[in-house]
Amino acid sequence: MRLAVIGAGAVGRSVVELAGEYGHEVVAVADSSSAVVADGGGTASTGVDPDAVVARKAERGIVGDDDPDDALAADYDVLVEATPTTLDDAEPGFSHVTRALERDRHAVLANKGPVAERFGDLRAAVADSDGEIRFEATVGGAIPAVSTVEDIEPGHVTAVRGVLNGTANFILTRMAAEGLDYDHVLAEAQDLGVAEADPSFDVDGTDAALKCVILANVLSFGAADDPADAREFTLADADVEGIRDVPGSALRLAAEDGRTVRLIGEATGDTVRVAPRLVPENGTLAVSGTQNIVQIETSHAGRLNISGRGAGGPETASAVLGDVGRLE
Amino acid sequence: MRLAVIGAGAVGRSVVELAGEYGHEVVAVADSSSAVVADGGGTASTGVDPDAVVARKAERGIVGDDDPDDALAADYDVLVEATPTTLDDAEPGFSHVTRALERDRHAVLANKGPVAERFGDLRAAVADSDGEIRFEATVGGAIPAVSTVEDIEPGHVTAVRGVLNGTANFILTRMAAEGLDYDHVLAEAQDLGVAEADPSFDVDGTDAALKCVILANVLSFGAADDPADAREFTLADADVEGIRDVPGSALRLAAEDGRTVRLIGEATGDTVRVAPRLVPENGTLAVSGTQNIVQIETSHAGRLNISGRGAGGPETASAVLGDVGRLE
Repeated sequence: MRLAVIGAGAVGRSVVELAGEYGHEVVAVADSSSAVVADGGGTASTGVDPDAVVARKAERGIVGDDDPDDALAADYDVLVEATPTTLDDAEPGFSHVTRALERDRHAVLANKGPVAERFGDLRAAVADSDGEIRFEATVGGAIPAVSTVEDIEPGHVTAVRGVLNGTANFILTRMAAEGLDYDHVLAEAQDLGVAEADPSFDVDGTDAALKCVILANVLSFGAADDPADAREFTLADADVEGIRDVPGSALRLAAEDGRTVRLIGEATGDTVRVAPRLVPENGTLAVSGTQNIVQIETSHAGRLNISGRGAGGPETASAVLGDVGRLE
Repeated sequence: MRLAVIGAGAVGRSVVELAGEYGHEVVAVADSSSAVVADGGGTASTGVDPDAVVARKAERGIVGDDDPDDALAADYDVLVEATPTTLDDAEPGFSHVTRALERDRHAVLANKGPVAERFGDLRAAVADSDGEIRFEATVGGAIPAVSTVEDIEPGHVTAVRGVLNGTANFILTRMAAEGLDYDHVLAEAQDLGVAEADPSFDVDGTDAALKCVILANVLSFGAADDPADAREFTLADADVEGIRDVPGSALRLAAEDGRTVRLIGEATGDTVRVAPRLVPENGTLAVSGTQNIVQIETSHAGRLNISGRGAGGPETASAVLGDVGRLE
């Protein structure tokens, strides 16, 4: 498949670098101010040069001399939406996707915004298009959460819960392991690049909540006999509490009882909740460091647990490219 | 889809009972000596009556008054092969599958025999047919092992390992928990119905080995540029050691070092091994009781762990019906 990669952050760059290994070629790349579009022209290899694009971005801060709109207008099969997550109207990501669908192309999202905040609008755009959307990369990085729920069939899934944010999990793991307070461990996480300079998206639970909202939409619309009746979720529907107020003493107290604290998100077809919770210290949900885990409760097959790397350029890119493969 | 279910043991009966919930209808069921075939006839509901079939099997030991061959000859979309696993020529299961493919129908297997022992012959039969085969239910029960490897793409999977036999795992878990010897715990497992009267298939590692052989075939053929060059695995290629010789003392010694013993199977594109191994007692591979875990090592996304119920009628049936859904 020919890919137009919109967004040249860690995920976008990894998709550009790995696409060839999955048998796909990148025909266009855009960041917020520039683009590079391969000119085709009948040669065997019509894609962009991945290494050159990534190097140019590193050295000059741009991907090419074209305009971002040239990438959106290019001749591609699948648009990869990897621009930063935005809330509410989820722009510009939402319009990147609808433009692809209006051209009867497919879109694969790593950007959570459109899927969490405008799921109904996306479905409407897909209904009017020959193209499809997929969004495995929006939940759980390398963990195949969305496709596993789809295969079990949402009507047979009663709940999905888990540790869905590696930054918050790393902080809690370190607080427990070292007996340190939140502020101290946050500084360590920022030094390591595990937490951002402004960490609120992660530590306030917003990132985990968006992922749970996406899962709730998948369950809700997937289980509905008539999608017109399905409840649509947005971030506003989520009950969210982050980890800023978890004191070191809470973790010490928990440890005395063989427990620890993890930021757990849960989605059903009716509710979305994110909050710190006590879990058994050696139990399944107590994944360590930046690991994620998704726990799927099913009607006929008991509970499935899937753990792995929840974030990272190559990890998320592998989820994107897995989705492209499913579109073929 | 219309299903012909061949095999009326725990898995076959569960497929018959659950098919309706997944939107499919059962048009024929066969056991080793009998069959029931719905007569169609233009009515809206043309399937067999699932409850009646299951009750008849329980009361009279047969599923109907037809001949098993009538089920194989029926008008169905997907044949479900759920007869007992047999080795070497993998008959009669192998011929049930090839007959479906010769009629350009699909086959979904819960029976490991044909997939482990005659993978090359199956591929050849599929190549000559409009039908496809799927076999998620042959490895890890409810755990989506095969489909997850397929989605990541076998060329990007370097190894698959795990705890793949619930009977052996239950015995080792109880030996460690209670400090009891193998013979004592085996008797307990048999009383609970977790181990069979002849437990050798499970405790000698054969069952786990067959599952690893299947995974090795998936990796080997999936990664090959030319399937004609791919190495085909059978049970004879597996290096297998069971749990009969694990003494209680080994588990006690392991525990002093924070470890325990689990029967671990591992498949790569080149090797298949099953043996008892020391693992960290609170680590990912140390699943308890009859749980299974599949650990997938990937090229770009690190390690994925999937744990859940490895066996059982409804669990395995959900894997079968998930496969049917993927064929639509």
